[in-house]
Amino acid sequence: MDKTMLTERIESDLIGPLPIPRHVLYGVHTRRAEQNFDVSGLRLRDFPELIQSMAMVKKAASIANMELGLLSPEKAEAISQACEELIELNDIDENFPVDMMQGGAGTSTNMNVNEVLANLALLKMGVDVGDYSKLHPNDDVNLSQSTNDVYPTAIRLTILRACEGLIAAEVALRDAFRAKAVQYSSAVKVGRTQLQDAVLITAGREFEAFAELIDEDIIQVQYACKLLKEINLGGSAIGTAINVPSGFAQLACGHLSRISGYPLIPARNFIEPTSDAGVFVSFSGVLKRIAVKLTKICNDLRLLSSGPRGGLGEIRLPPVQARSSIMPGKVNPVIPEMMNQISFQVIGNDLTVTLAASAGQLQLNAMEPVIVLNILQSMRMPTRGMVVLKERCIDGIEVDVDRCKALLDQSLVLATPLAKLIGYSKAAYLSKKALVEKRNLRDVVEEERVLTESQAHQIFGDTAEFANFSKSARG
Amino acid sequence: MDKTMLTERIESDLIGPLPIPRHVLYGVHTRRAEQNFDVSGLRLRDFPELIQSMAMVKKAASIANMELGLLSPEKAEAISQACEELIELNDIDENFPVDMMQGGAGTSTNMNVNEVLANLALLKMGVDVGDYSKLHPNDDVNLSQSTNDVYPTAIRLTILRACEGLIAAEVALRDAFRAKAVQYSSAVKVGRTQLQDAVLITAGREFEAFAELIDEDIIQVQYACKLLKEINLGGSAIGTAINVPSGFAQLACGHLSRISGYPLIPARNFIEPTSDAGVFVSFSGVLKRIAVKLTKICNDLRLLSSGPRGGLGEIRLPPVQARSSIMPGKVNPVIPEMMNQISFQVIGNDLTVTLAASAGQLQLNAMEPVIVLNILQSMRMPTRGMVVLKERCIDGIEVDVDRCKALLDQSLVLATPLAKLIGYSKAAYLSKKALVEKRNLRDVVEEERVLTESQAHQIFGDTAEFANFSKSARG
Amino acid sequence: MDKTMLTERIESDLIGPLPIPRHVLYGVHTRRAEQNFDVSGLRLRDFPELIQSMAMVKKAASIANMELGLLSPEKAEAISQACEELIELNDIDENFPVDMMQGGAGTSTNMNVNEVLANLALLKMGVDVGDYSKLHPNDDVNLSQSTNDVYPTAIRLTILRACEGLIAAEVALRDAFRAKAVQYSSAVKVGRTQLQDAVLITAGREFEAFAELIDEDIIQVQYACKLLKEINLGGSAIGTAINVPSGFAQLACGHLSRISGYPLIPARNFIEPTSDAGVFVSFSGVLKRIAVKLTKICNDLRLLSSGPRGGLGEIRLPPVQARSSIMPGKVNPVIPEMMNQISFQVIGNDLTVTLAASAGQLQLNAMEPVIVLNILQSMRMPTRGMVVLKERCIDGIEVDVDRCKALLDQSLVLATPLAKLIGYSKAAYLSKKALVEKRNLRDVVEEERVLTESQAHQIFGDTAEFANFSKSARG
Amino acid sequence: MDKTMLTERIESDLIGPLPIPRHVLYGVHTRRAEQNFDVSGLRLRDFPELIQSMAMVKKAASIANMELGLLSPEKAEAISQACEELIELNDIDENFPVDMMQGGAGTSTNMNVNEVLANLALLKMGVDVGDYSKLHPNDDVNLSQSTNDVYPTAIRLTILRACEGLIAAEVALRDAFRAKAVQYSSAVKVGRTQLQDAVLITAGREFEAFAELIDEDIIQVQYACKLLKEINLGGSAIGTAINVPSGFAQLACGHLSRISGYPLIPARNFIEPTSDAGVFVSFSGVLKRIAVKLTKICNDLRLLSSGPRGGLGEIRLPPVQARSSIMPGKVNPVIPEMMNQISFQVIGNDLTVTLAASAGQLQLNAMEPVIVLNILQSMRMPTRGMVVLKERCIDGIEVDVDRCKALLDQSLVLATPLAKLIGYSKAAYLSKKALVEKRNLRDVVEEERVLTESQAHQIFGDTAEFANFSKSARG
Repeated sequence: MDKTMLTERIESDLIGPLPIPRHVLYGVHTRRAEQNFDVSGLRLRDFPELIQSMAMVKKAASIANMELGLLSPEKAEAISQACEELIELNDIDENFPVDMMQGGAGTSTNMNVNEVLANLALLKMGVDVGDYSKLHPNDDVNLSQSTNDVYPTAIRLTILRACEGLIAAEVALRDAFRAKAVQYSSAVKVGRTQLQDAVLITAGREFEAFAELIDEDIIQVQYACKLLKEINLGGSAIGTAINVPSGFAQLACGHLSRISGYPLIPARNFIEPTSDAGVFVSFSGVLKRIAVKLTKICNDLRLLSSGPRGGLGEIRLPPVQARSSIMPGKVNPVIPEMMNQISFQVIGNDLTVTLAASAGQLQLNAMEPVIVLNILQSMRMPTRGMVVLKERCIDGIEVDVDRCKALLDQSLVLATPLAKLIGYSKAAYLSKKALVEKRNLRDVVEEERVLTESQAHQIFGDTAEFANFSKSARG
Repeated sequence: MDKTMLTERIESDLIGPLPIPRHVLYGVHTRRAEQNFDVSGLRLRDFPELIQSMAMVKKAASIANMELGLLSPEKAEAISQACEELIELNDIDENFPVDMMQGGAGTSTNMNVNEVLANLALLKMGVDVGDYSKLHPNDDVNLSQSTNDVYPTAIRLTILRACEGLIAAEVALRDAFRAKAVQYSSAVKVGRTQLQDAVLITAGREFEAFAELIDEDIIQVQYACKLLKEINLGGSAIGTAINVPSGFAQLACGHLSRISGYPLIPARNFIEPTSDAGVFVSFSGVLKRIAVKLTKICNDLRLLSSGPRGGLGEIRLPPVQARSSIMPGKVNPVIPEMMNQISFQVIGNDLTVTLAASAGQLQLNAMEPVIVLNILQSMRMPTRGMVVLKERCIDGIEVDVDRCKALLDQSLVLATPLAKLIGYSKAAYLSKKALVEKRNLRDVVEEERVLTESQAHQIFGDTAEFANFSKSARG
Repeated sequence: MDKTMLTERIESDLIGPLPIPRHVLYGVHTRRAEQNFDVSGLRLRDFPELIQSMAMVKKAASIANMELGLLSPEKAEAISQACEELIELNDIDENFPVDMMQGGAGTSTNMNVNEVLANLALLKMGVDVGDYSKLHPNDDVNLSQSTNDVYPTAIRLTILRACEGLIAAEVALRDAFRAKAVQYSSAVKVGRTQLQDAVLITAGREFEAFAELIDEDIIQVQYACKLLKEINLGGSAIGTAINVPSGFAQLACGHLSRISGYPLIPARNFIEPTSDAGVFVSFSGVLKRIAVKLTKICNDLRLLSSGPRGGLGEIRLPPVQARSSIMPGKVNPVIPEMMNQISFQVIGNDLTVTLAASAGQLQLNAMEPVIVLNILQSMRMPTRGMVVLKERCIDGIEVDVDRCKALLDQSLVLATPLAKLIGYSKAAYLSKKALVEKRNLRDVVEEERVLTESQAHQIFGDTAEFANFSKSARG
Repeated sequence: MDKTMLTERIESDLIGPLPIPRHVLYGVHTRRAEQNFDVSGLRLRDFPELIQSMAMVKKAASIANMELGLLSPEKAEAISQACEELIELNDIDENFPVDMMQGGAGTSTNMNVNEVLANLALLKMGVDVGDYSKLHPNDDVNLSQSTNDVYPTAIRLTILRACEGLIAAEVALRDAFRAKAVQYSSAVKVGRTQLQDAVLITAGREFEAFAELIDEDIIQVQYACKLLKEINLGGSAIGTAINVPSGFAQLACGHLSRISGYPLIPARNFIEPTSDAGVFVSFSGVLKRIAVKLTKICNDLRLLSSGPRGGLGEIRLPPVQARSSIMPGKVNPVIPEMMNQISFQVIGNDLTVTLAASAGQLQLNAMEPVIVLNILQSMRMPTRGMVVLKERCIDGIEVDVDRCKALLDQSLVLATPLAKLIGYSKAAYLSKKALVEKRNLRDVVEEERVLTESQAHQIFGDTAEFANFSKSARG
């Protein structure tokens, strides 16, 4: 007896027979794909959220097929149970080896899921793995479906589900900035434009602006989610619903909405979403926008915390790892730096998505695998990154209120409100005098006796009032 | 007498005196900028739509200043009239030389407009050009304003106004595709996925999908416009409304809405939009999405019209220029090629916008000039390009119905509906037989007598029925 | 006794004590980094080539330190042996958990390596893991070094080493195309410009052009490697060699050359390479260029193999996986599609590298971790991809010589050489006649009797002669 | 008599007759192109350097044609003289209206040049404009040529010629930094990594690093030029030299080398460069690299000059335009900001080039017009920008030596050399004490009496010595 029979079974496709490890639940198509596409090191199992969504789609389809009389209740039940296993992420580890970077518009991902589900269902039916005469990956699990409608539907659902975490991370980060805004609402400081001292601001309003940046992105993500709710399940190979029974699309969409908890709707035209990846371009664009904002915020945090002596030094980031070995006393802004790099990755990934989306041809965009890989990475990294940023950086930020005030006092930014009281040219003269003589503007102003005591108090005494002036300016 | 006195006048700034050509209406700040930034060859005068928007903002501000008692009615009236001149694009050519690629966050553009308006207003008041003691570019025209609120406001307004032309071009192009969809609704042909013959489609539905692609983009542009209607006019240097009188923001915004015809509203937070260019990232992303779609459409048009003998040859594009000098009888798809290249430019420009938007620091994004330059170019080129594409290409497309039918008849794509009638394995056998023997599937099917006459008619006789099958599939 | 003492040991840094799993060889700095940067799922252990290079650098440094009398022979020997373990990739799996996407300019990667090497060395010295008083990760393993010189040096070395595989894959792919060029040197066919039938070519020369494309890239990679051989080891924190003993840089560089087998040289200026990532921009640009070429080649392969009946159908790609479930008889070009997607990823990654390289500030570029991650991915994927492309696609390509000839015969491309014999206007007339009457050019020419028999043979008889004409045209 | 006859002449092509303004020298093909491609506002006349190169190619071709007996000496002489006119940029303004953004792989540019040259030559021959029976744009001026070899050749030559200005600007900028490096070689200051105070450096070495950055780019440009010297003139439509007489390629290349002054050589394979734009990807990549470096340098300049009171304030940039209207005393770094924006444009343009280069299909890349447009813009803007940057910014930079010293004295960066003398832990203790007590490290060190007088002098007295230490460290 051949010893490998104990460890392998044989499956065949049109190319020929192929040995499959006995302990795995996938079949010949998965094995072929594994051989064809071992390039990225990133496998389907590394993206369990996509496996879950595929299982939800398959479950919805199997129920619809049963209701339309195409699938026996026994088979439908077994497939549904198998789908449940995957939704709960049982048996994931060894069974989903196909590379995320695959040719074929997602066929290999679809077949990997079909095969594992078929074998899981067979086991539930008490049948041996691989005996597809009882329940077939293609004829039963994939019934009324095509990769070209199943895969884009599952991608949309995966992104929708991943948005929950993304939005939660954004909300938490926004709120963390808002808390800092409240905490430091009266910490007056120099506001800067073009990196030059400009006019008065408070640390609070600076944090508030960060919160606002993120808040606007949350709205964009929510809007982008709406577009994702249109699915092309039931469109079949090219959106013409060929070989799909009448009524399937509506039924399957309804079941998928219920199973997933998201109110999905069939696209008004099935041909367009099969060939077009525009919705992914838009969504990736929203992720890019988030990356742009986080770049700006993290650049600012690193700049404001520069020093401790030779930089701005207005804020202190909490230390999260040991200082430099060679330079005693140095604390590096490693968390914002990490976020900066994540942002660069997201912007690069957006380009990859754009290129892939541009490469659709005629009735299909075959480049969706690289699109989904990049979008899922571009959601995962900022989501995790924002959680870390909030917990290990923002929450622990301390404003050096004294330093802020000192820089403000020695700056010339109060020349602007001063100009309002004593005229532009007089203010400019005093400002220049202070600059040339390397003195504080306040000293020069007092020396020249250009202000009444109450005016002096107004400008130099309670500067926070100026900083918050605009709150009423819109009225 | 110095002869140059006839051709030049002298203006001064803090750096020193500078000769200005006598016949121009700009002043010293514009002249400095001209010297500092002569780099791109693209000048403010090449973007009259931006000059118009700036003039609308200045008019709104001057009226608001008058109403608040800050500006005399005479001055306000003269400035308003000067603004009208620019809105009607009089006196544009020589007076707006500043380079669009400028440092300083738009200050030079703002000052160029301030100076020309001041001099135009002086002329209306009967005063000599350059006699700013009567009406000052800065103290009067720029009153209550800062480049940092005027410039972003004018950019938003410019984009909003340019959207009209963009959307009109999209609508016309969409409708042109829809007309073709109706015209060729029964022209059956091979549908292709991954460039391989797949299943039946009609030329009409192929055109319909193009129309749908564009229709979705129109919706995206309209949504993006909404975000642009929030302006920060009245926010002053950093959004804290420093030196801006109470009430100015609301008044100026109201006037600007009326003057421009767009319902603008003050942003809920003024600090954030001063430093953030996120809205431009989003808008540029929408333009990029359009470019991605047009790339796909033009690629398809070029592919479908490949030939005339050695390609697909399913459609014929109208010839718009003489054929090759060296190759008689060759017609090149130059209009789609132009559109492809415009799309590449828009995608590249989107990256430039992204980079500039990421470079905001603290209270300002100083890189807005390159943002506005790229967005305006990325609106102008596809707008003009789509008009040309519609008129000189799409309207004149002819489908070679016979060629489509011939390719379909010799193809194997009817094996898919056949499989539904006679089973997958029998259909696969016949399909392979046809392929190997280089025969038509229909011949092989007839030879093997697997269909009744009525079935044969159903599949091979009226194939358009299949192609349109999905229209009811969703029901 | 605390039970966790069996499974954990405690290490401390300036932040405080931290439990470390007992069985691992890393220490507190690695553990902190693991907590700070768990974002990408891509860990140091997934890039063993980088671990190897780091170990080579550390070995070279320890020997140099010993020779300069800074490190005892015992310690140096233990460290060297530990380095050997890592070079041979022993003990990699559990010991290198730090995320590749890390803040801190590579400090965490450096410390992970320092800690594992220290503990491996301690074990070789018969000392307990974690007893750093005997041999210290920082004071001994990292002696005379800084992350800012060690990390960039190791990156350069890693890329250099990875180039071997990349070039080998390119050479094999080039040679595969050359073999096809020889095989089909006389298969005449239609040459196409702008997707329109243009002039005669042979399939062989088409393959030859692909080979040439790749050959030029090989030269570019080789040139880029030269730039990578300049290292800044010995430059310390900012390139001023602070705290580095005189002579160290030369000694360490010499040892590293010997250990690695690459002739490295110290940079002529140490400050510039510490802060600049220009060399990585250049190298990534070469990878992008490869991606652009592969995009073009794979697009062409998919186009030439389009069909089987409704496309060009001039070549057949070998089938590597089962056909579509829904469409019998369809073979998809999945391998080129995979390569297309890899190319999109590489182009996107190049943007990420560009962004990170632009973000250097003052004396350091802190964004190198995302640079190395993207470059290594962009080397790995095309390397593996090209091996697959060659073995599973190019080697098995068959040209359908009959189809090529048939398309050529029915085309009008021979009008061009015809024009040379009978004049442009006569040739254009015949060409148009053939087009309108839907006939072959040859038939029309014969009917009109415009050629002698020998001329007819010259043009229509042995067309391969024309195709190869240019080989002598340069003489 | 029709009045328009006075102002118009009629020319015809295969599409039909078309009126041409009487005073212009172009013909029907140019006029068609003008109508087809009016999209970008950037016309051939805006790029006179390209017109010149085209004229050089045409002159070389006409001489070669004459030598091969294909063109009469009279015609060749008239064409050569016409070419000379264009090389000297006479008659450019009205005669080159075709849009740079054109479909058709450059055909319209080629035909525009052919037509103007033909009419200029006719005028020289005493013949009326438009009487092409005497000398034909196509049959004579374009003889033995195709757009597909002429246009890429002219592009290469144009880039080569534009490199002179680019390199000169780089050299001048590098030397300006070197002059500053010498001027401030002993100005000690804080060196910063990750924006945190790190170790000692001098302002001189910081400038030296900038010079080095640029110097390396010069080498890259020079290398890239080498690749551009291979031309495909003589390759005809697809590189097979169809209809090109034997010997033409060598002759024309020789003449072009002589006329242009660049040692050009025929490519070893003509098919590859006709379809491939890889050389432009590489060249654009070099421009991108320059942009990345300039981004870094300008970011640093803006950071180092931040202030004047609330920033680093280590250097002062010369003021080049009036200060803010609203904020007295503010000088903005507008020149580096301009350069930053140019860099963003170049990086975006590089993406456009990449996309266009990826879009080559089969025997031609039809997207070259957008490639040449973007490369020429990406050369022109940085060239002009660097000249401005050097003259209006770098030359006038002043280092605030006192400020640098003051920041250094209050920093803790001398803890690193201190550690070498008194041990790491003692140095760390003193450093922390200084930080907590907000005192200078020097005071604390003196208080604790840990150094001899000579040691103290060594560290705190002549810090420049440390900064320049590394100069010998490599020895």
